Amino acid sequence: MSLKLYGYWRSSASYRVRIAMHLKQIDFDYVPVHLVKDGGEQRSAAYSSMNPSMLVPTFVDEDEDIVLNQSLAIMEYLDDKYPNTPALLPSHTLDKARVRALAQDIACDIQPVTNLRILEGLKSDFSASSEQTQAWCSKWITQGFTALEKRLATRSGKYCYGYDVTLADVCLVSQVYNALRFKVDMQRFPLIQKIYDNCNELEAFQKAKPEAQTDAG
Amino acid sequence: MSLKLYGYWRSSASYRVRIAMHLKQIDFDYVPVHLVKDGGEQRSAAYSSMNPSMLVPTFVDEDEDIVLNQSLAIMEYLDDKYPNTPALLPSHTLDKARVRALAQDIACDIQPVTNLRILEGLKSDFSASSEQTQAWCSKWITQGFTALEKRLATRSGKYCYGYDVTLADVCLVSQVYNALRFKVDMQRFPLIQKIYDNCNELEAFQKAKPEAQTDAG
Repeated sequence: MSLKLYGYWRSSASYRVRIAMHLKQIDFDYVPVHLVKDGGEQRSAAYSSMNPSMLVPTFVDEDEDIVLNQSLAIMEYLDDKYPNTPALLPSHTLDKARVRALAQDIACDIQPVTNLRILEGLKSDFSASSEQTQAWCSKWITQGFTALEKRLATRSGKYCYGYDVTLADVCLVSQVYNALRFKVDMQRFPLIQKIYDNCNELEAFQKAKPEAQTDAG
Repeated sequence: MSLKLYGYWRSSASYRVRIAMHLKQIDFDYVPVHLVKDGGEQRSAAYSSMNPSMLVPTFVDEDEDIVLNQSLAIMEYLDDKYPNTPALLPSHTLDKARVRALAQDIACDIQPVTNLRILEGLKSDFSASSEQTQAWCSKWITQGFTALEKRLATRSGKYCYGYDVTLADVCLVSQVYNALRFKVDMQRFPLIQKIYDNCNELEAFQKAKPEAQTDAG
């Protein structure tokens, strides 16, 4: 197998790339990196020499001799390399820009401020309790989703951008999964909830779910 | 003038788009949105109806009838729409992926966790002092730059990726500007510092500097 994805079942950035690869029906080896066990396997010498950010996911294409981090960059790489599988981005410049912006509303504005290392930082730097870190996550996801729900009112259809699955849906589904963990009130976001449900009817999204991974625990 | 950029002089995401537009020598109107005055102009009805995230920048192309947020999406839009001006991304799939990943190392992993709304959140939710918020920013920028310095050792030249200015440099320069504000020890990052200095020799980077904007204060 020439394609490897190093990830963690519950990491939403890993989840995104799994969805994208299943949507494009690309075969790959999934290599679990346990973010908590033994102080975090992402900090091991082997992993950090491959990805000095010590974050997941890391994607390896051995045939091309490329090691790539950053879920959005990995997904756009897959879209460039396998253009004949379903595209994750529309072809027109304006549509493409709008879809990228929706994906980044999640991948830049919501997910980074609620991930594991930040919650660990709040605990170590501000003695945050579990209730406080949960409230922190819920607050930023709610704020981000409030804006996203308004944006989706303009151009969503069955999915975030019309009737084809795009990069925006991939990001949305993995973020809603986190929202549910952090007890965000999803009744406030009917469009987001509807798109989440529509996506989860598709086999690619089902195969990519955290609970369906070999390292789920 | 058909192109408008709503931004704030010291917002690093606004700074990125200004650099990109000056690099591509695109004329635009810069419209300041004061993030602090009167509770934040980004929360006004007029601005939030255009950008419900209530963040800067927002880019408007009146000829195309497009209103776009997210600095990375805006810059890729400019690169798609004006391909004959200097490209911000290399043309080869592998190179493009690596440059996008470098840009996202900054735009997803560093900047979002140190921006104004997060610092306000630390103050309101954890009674963080100014010293503590500065230490928070310094910690995450230092951690991100430590990884980035290692990555740059492989493929940087005069700039982040060889000898042409890319999206990665645009993100790097605006992030170093913030690092200096938050008193990050830049001596630990000689490659980043060198690239920052090389970029700042270019007129486009000089014109985009926070202090050169009409709303600098």
